Amino acid sequence: MAQLDHEEQLTAIIAAIEERLEYLLPTKSEHSQELVDAMRYATLGGGKRLRGTLVCATASSLSGDYTRALDAACALECLHAYSLVHDDLPVMDDAALRRGKPSCHAVFGPALATLVGDALQPLAFSLVLDCPELTSNQRLAISQTLAHASGWRGMVGGQAWDIETSQADALTIESLRRLHAAKTGEFFVAAIEIGRLIARPDGDTGEREVLERFSRKLGEAFQVVDDLLDTTESTAQLGKPSGQDARHDKPTFPVLLGSAEATTYAQTLLHNAFSDLEDIELGNSLLAAVAERCVNRLR
Amino acid sequence: MAQLDHEEQLTAIIAAIEERLEYLLPTKSEHSQELVDAMRYATLGGGKRLRGTLVCATASSLSGDYTRALDAACALECLHAYSLVHDDLPVMDDAALRRGKPSCHAVFGPALATLVGDALQPLAFSLVLDCPELTSNQRLAISQTLAHASGWRGMVGGQAWDIETSQADALTIESLRRLHAAKTGEFFVAAIEIGRLIARPDGDTGEREVLERFSRKLGEAFQVVDDLLDTTESTAQLGKPSGQDARHDKPTFPVLLGSAEATTYAQTLLHNAFSDLEDIELGNSLLAAVAERCVNRLR
Repeated sequence: MAQLDHEEQLTAIIAAIEERLEYLLPTKSEHSQELVDAMRYATLGGGKRLRGTLVCATASSLSGDYTRALDAACALECLHAYSLVHDDLPVMDDAALRRGKPSCHAVFGPALATLVGDALQPLAFSLVLDCPELTSNQRLAISQTLAHASGWRGMVGGQAWDIETSQADALTIESLRRLHAAKTGEFFVAAIEIGRLIARPDGDTGEREVLERFSRKLGEAFQVVDDLLDTTESTAQLGKPSGQDARHDKPTFPVLLGSAEATTYAQTLLHNAFSDLEDIELGNSLLAAVAERCVNRLR
Repeated sequence: MAQLDHEEQLTAIIAAIEERLEYLLPTKSEHSQELVDAMRYATLGGGKRLRGTLVCATASSLSGDYTRALDAACALECLHAYSLVHDDLPVMDDAALRRGKPSCHAVFGPALATLVGDALQPLAFSLVLDCPELTSNQRLAISQTLAHASGWRGMVGGQAWDIETSQADALTIESLRRLHAAKTGEFFVAAIEIGRLIARPDGDTGEREVLERFSRKLGEAFQVVDDLLDTTESTAQLGKPSGQDARHDKPTFPVLLGSAEATTYAQTLLHNAFSDLEDIELGNSLLAAVAERCVNRLR
């Protein structure tokens, strides 16, 4: 019964994020209507909203309320959408499918898709900087978190490392972990930190550190599972081209560890992440439920 | 003598911006050293620093001090550098030369150049969000200004409109003015507004409005001159490919007005901009000196 409640709550959160994104994304432009249409195409109507849900679930677990976290959740989803649009470009992964539909550049061309990503970045910052539900200090701290997570030490740094690494066995496990900690992990850390900043802006350092440890394990487990799914699922199931890593000879956890050990590793990470959560007081177990969903996908 | 003073002061400001950018841009990365090298390549060692100088000159003219404005000036220069890197990409203008040296993608490839632009955006926000010289309210207001100027209603909106407009005579003068107000003008408005926010955070609305009118005229005059220089100067003089507009059959002021009338128009805009400045109290005429330099370039 508790399980059912969680599922219902998560479904409600995802619907709320989707509805809020619909509202926050621009609809009309006097400059380029196509840009605005393409921004909506790239951001709406697809995606698991895991990062936005993590923001909201953290806020809910810490304070019982997630509604004040919705705009910040949407901001993170805009940054994630931008990263996918640029990642799919012909000069990058050259992927024609994303979230079960043609990728942004396949529909609007690579020039406009480049600009879509470029415009989603400042929009993400605006959503937080202008959010009336948050205090000035919260807006500042959340914006700083977003800038760090998406910058040269975060997601883009990981992306650059990733495109430099052209051979599947070119990295040690430790280097691969650090690559993914930047490319994928920093958005998980940011999501949970943002939820915390909204729910408990004056929370203690201990709680913050526990949540960060939890986030890092969760982000890594998510990536291991992502690598596994790329080898086992079909393009239709993934909604994006499957077998991409092998095609680009990318280093992955299954390649370096073997599939069986990678699967065990992901479950161990999730188990250890759950242990972290026992060190802090949470009002509900919604955060744990999203974590579970991040790792045990497509069941 | 006063003229000489201005030249010396502007030279000092440009040197201070250059030195501060050197310091603020990352030098070492554990993720991708090439990304960091390319970010420095694209941002340092070139450029007139007009936008950063406008931030500083505004602060100086309103408060006598420009040093507190340096980080925000560098933030705007980072955003401008990112826009040039993406603008030069093969899928956009496909320009091999920028600021007198090979463009970023010509040296580092289009994938990394895409990421360089992507990383310069959050870096720009970080420079402002983390700036210890500014109050929380200033950091918020300046970040909001940057997000607006670089977003779908600002620079990127203008860029998207620009790439959709493929014929030189496809626009009326009025539409061309609005296109450039977005693509170029919003950064001029932002530069001067940011200088004002730093120098007089509690300044009155009247002063703000006068400065905005001034900025819009200056931004337009700058663009008219840019269009003219593209037809009259050599690639070596410009430091970027000359004749680009004609090559891409872009609508420009010289095409729509004729060169002579466009020249007169730029000088009229500058004259009217100077008139605006007479409506407010300025401690020095450094802002006017930069404006003059924006329009009367390459002499």
